[in-house]
Amino acid sequence: MNKIFFTAGPSQLYPTYQSHFQQAMEENIGSISHRSTFYKEFHQSTVENLKLLMGIPETHTILFFSSANEIWERLIQNCVETGSFHFVNGAFSNRFSQITQELMYPCTIHETEKGKGFTYIPDLIPATTDLINFTHNESSTGVIQPLEAVYEYKRNHPEALITLDIVSSAPFPELDYSLIDGAYFSVQKGMGMPAGLGVLIAGEKLKDRAESILNKGKSIGSYHRFTDMWTKAVNYQTMETPNILSIYLLGKVLGDMLKKGIGEIRRETLLKMEILTEVVNKSPHFSFFVKEKAFRSPTVITIETRDEAALYLKALEDEGLIVGSGYGTLKPNQVRIANFPAHSVSDFEQLARRLSQF
Amino acid sequence: MNKIFFTAGPSQLYPTYQSHFQQAMEENIGSISHRSTFYKEFHQSTVENLKLLMGIPETHTILFFSSANEIWERLIQNCVETGSFHFVNGAFSNRFSQITQELMYPCTIHETEKGKGFTYIPDLIPATTDLINFTHNESSTGVIQPLEAVYEYKRNHPEALITLDIVSSAPFPELDYSLIDGAYFSVQKGMGMPAGLGVLIAGEKLKDRAESILNKGKSIGSYHRFTDMWTKAVNYQTMETPNILSIYLLGKVLGDMLKKGIGEIRRETLLKMEILTEVVNKSPHFSFFVKEKAFRSPTVITIETRDEAALYLKALEDEGLIVGSGYGTLKPNQVRIANFPAHSVSDFEQLARRLSQF
Repeated sequence: MNKIFFTAGPSQLYPTYQSHFQQAMEENIGSISHRSTFYKEFHQSTVENLKLLMGIPETHTILFFSSANEIWERLIQNCVETGSFHFVNGAFSNRFSQITQELMYPCTIHETEKGKGFTYIPDLIPATTDLINFTHNESSTGVIQPLEAVYEYKRNHPEALITLDIVSSAPFPELDYSLIDGAYFSVQKGMGMPAGLGVLIAGEKLKDRAESILNKGKSIGSYHRFTDMWTKAVNYQTMETPNILSIYLLGKVLGDMLKKGIGEIRRETLLKMEILTEVVNKSPHFSFFVKEKAFRSPTVITIETRDEAALYLKALEDEGLIVGSGYGTLKPNQVRIANFPAHSVSDFEQLARRLSQF
Repeated sequence: MNKIFFTAGPSQLYPTYQSHFQQAMEENIGSISHRSTFYKEFHQSTVENLKLLMGIPETHTILFFSSANEIWERLIQNCVETGSFHFVNGAFSNRFSQITQELMYPCTIHETEKGKGFTYIPDLIPATTDLINFTHNESSTGVIQPLEAVYEYKRNHPEALITLDIVSSAPFPELDYSLIDGAYFSVQKGMGMPAGLGVLIAGEKLKDRAESILNKGKSIGSYHRFTDMWTKAVNYQTMETPNILSIYLLGKVLGDMLKKGIGEIRRETLLKMEILTEVVNKSPHFSFFVKEKAFRSPTVITIETRDEAALYLKALEDEGLIVGSGYGTLKPNQVRIANFPAHSVSDFEQLARRLSQF
């Protein structure tokens, strides 16, 4: 039986992924040098496709890492001197703040309960803060952070850098990059690829900050310091042998998304969310975990279940519909459903049909 | 035209790589969770196959990273307090020492000229040294480091940890792991896979050292600190979503190598080296860059060319034989030829035939 993975990541592969892999094998992508002209060309193409799809301006450069976990660590090493401020509303935003503490950098946490996002609160952020970290889409709870509040913090703290975790929302959000210094994701979510590549959309200020810290004689890491990475990246090169195959395949998948158009991807995302909403609203079994609509993510949808979540997961799996369980303590009575570009409208219709039968 | 990549890495893919990829797609390896039982099972299988193939004892655990570059950084962060000692005889051993300096840890370098390895010198290593780093196979020059000297340093510095870069020699070397605390490689060399996974064969003492540094209140990094990684690894788990597909495929390729047997792989490696040696010795065009046989690597073979290396590279490429250029300043009159398990005896016969025609 063919399975459809609605898990929040790793998730369903993009429909064209396998055919691009075959093409990659024919072009010897697994064997070529990352210093070759051929490599530089498709690295450039991947970068250009991403910039085009997500409306990324000239001020921002694309840096490749191995995972979002790595990006968390590198952001702290390269951008923090006096204080990292973390908005925490779930397991992943919390993990980022832990990483800051494990690296032994000054860390302030502002926490709200699971299922909620943040609004602008004046005077919340200490003057010592030089990095503010938001999670645009908290994958563990299905909360989307309204962007206006993020921008308001940036406007009121222009000297601080601000980053946005778009791990489980990219490529959906339309961002104002003049107010976002860094946004990052990993490819096993919205890009519909296997895990092993993290992508940082890095504003020039991230690199400038890294340079300034380095110039004060402090370490900002080694092979993945933003200064050297930036110099390589603008020439479509990396510091070390990267995940070449994944960079190639990302470019191809992005190319397909461009053919579809980001407008259509966004429209379909909302349509699929609507299909699910209709079922949930009608069902005595289900309700949304995120009560406030403004905080309800369209890309990772968390649903509370009347009976044990495991029963629903099992019944869905029997029909090849692989849905995620709730995260951590939310596991007993929650299911999580990813709504990524790899999921078609008909995939969601099939899922909705089965859900409506409970 | 089918190409054969004799480049030192990325290199020729293992002959069964693509069919294992197809199997991976059928098993949804790109979509499954790294917390699933299914994942744990093939992670375990990969670890067990590697341990079996390379004769790795119970004292050592397998930790997964994204590259050898990352492993360099992590070794320093997790294992150095008072001094890292680097034996440098080429670009890669030198890069490791640079990484130590970029991380701002105390670093001592003992350098010899390119094309040579190291012998044991009493009283060379300062008493403050807590990590000694050898490159078993310096990919930039084709030098193999005789293991007896490495062991002798360990015997004389039992309190220091000793690591071995086997990036371009694995799985060839037969190591005495009672005298090696860490050995590491990346999969795009001898494993015949695309880049994107680094593997550290970690002795328990690496983890103990990390723990001891952490207990003194110093940072040893975050998501890839050896303490937490070890706890996960013994349960066939990773800290973050890893390169799941690559861990799966490595296990499959290792399984095929096990069927062939490490003895046969070593025998073939030496036979292919012999085939090339015969051509070089007879040819007026070629001579070995590494003059002392004891330092001449069987897995990355560097050959000095009478005329410009570019001419030979071009002529070979015209027949689909992709050979590496010399590294850095050695480029004008050198070619580098990888001799990995993915290269068959008949590949080397074909290469030798063409070389003998010059």
